[in-house]
Amino acid sequence: MNLADSIRAIPDYPRPGIVFRDITTLLGDARAFRRAVDELVQPFAGLKIAKIAGIEARGFILGGAVAHQLSAGFIPVRKKGKLPLETLRATFALEYGTDEIEIHRDAVLPGERVLLVDDLIATGGTAEAAVNLLSGLGAEVVAACFIVDLPDLGGADKIRRLGVPVRTLVSFRDA
Amino acid sequence: MNLADSIRAIPDYPRPGIVFRDITTLLGDARAFRRAVDELVQPFAGLKIAKIAGIEARGFILGGAVAHQLSAGFIPVRKKGKLPLETLRATFALEYGTDEIEIHRDAVLPGERVLLVDDLIATGGTAEAAVNLLSGLGAEVVAACFIVDLPDLGGADKIRRLGVPVRTLVSFRDA
Repeated sequence: MNLADSIRAIPDYPRPGIVFRDITTLLGDARAFRRAVDELVQPFAGLKIAKIAGIEARGFILGGAVAHQLSAGFIPVRKKGKLPLETLRATFALEYGTDEIEIHRDAVLPGERVLLVDDLIATGGTAEAAVNLLSGLGAEVVAACFIVDLPDLGGADKIRRLGVPVRTLVSFRDA
Repeated sequence: MNLADSIRAIPDYPRPGIVFRDITTLLGDARAFRRAVDELVQPFAGLKIAKIAGIEARGFILGGAVAHQLSAGFIPVRKKGKLPLETLRATFALEYGTDEIEIHRDAVLPGERVLLVDDLIATGGTAEAAVNLLSGLGAEVVAACFIVDLPDLGGADKIRRLGVPVRTLVSFRDA
């Protein structure tokens, strides 16, 4: 099984010239979903990961499964205004304008070993903001994991420059 | 371990008089998260569940873990406008106004056995809409599972009246 074959390409979505990589087909295929989780976490199985930080919303699906696989806790990295208690917030650039994500200030303890998980890394703005939030609370971000990398957009390199190893399973070059 | 003790009560959120049940503390506790998943799926382990349908956004976290536990696929039930291809859409009532959720039309095959998963059931409007979407595509909704039930709001009974068994782990009466 090639995981790339389980990911659906949607041309000209959300706008002309963009090929959207739709992982719902991978998630819906029990064997592909399990294999993606297994491959993603394989290097981290013995590393005493305390918590998985998943990025809203698709990173929640994958992150929930990864947390279960590693018997770790789960931290939601949410869009602004969704968490009920005191948060740490980070702003990041979008193509037009900015957006914000946040985590509960008590979501992680200083020194806790955390894996960051999302379905896909493109420009890496959200992932960079998430790394900064986790580091800002004293967590040790052991690695950042994504099923799909769009290397032409440079996100994985951006995260590596923060000193955080990046693991991805599938790369698409024509993004 | 009592799962109820892992859920944080936040008084007067999101507005005065409401006690918000915050499951981020349960998710962040690896043992509590694993136990919740184990208990939730225990009746369904031998029932050949093909797919877990998780409701955006917190239902994605729990649903991802449940799908992994049962070696099932995952179907995202999303807020309007988030899915890239042709969808089936359902409208449901909120306290003020209405909202819509949708699923990809090809997310499920006729006759597939599906478990619906969300973190909490209150009035049950979203869950009812999700059951209707899945049934509308020909799926067999084997059960609907939630960590938290707020029975005073009647949601679980609403789902049972659709002929779908409901499983919950923790009830809070002072909602």
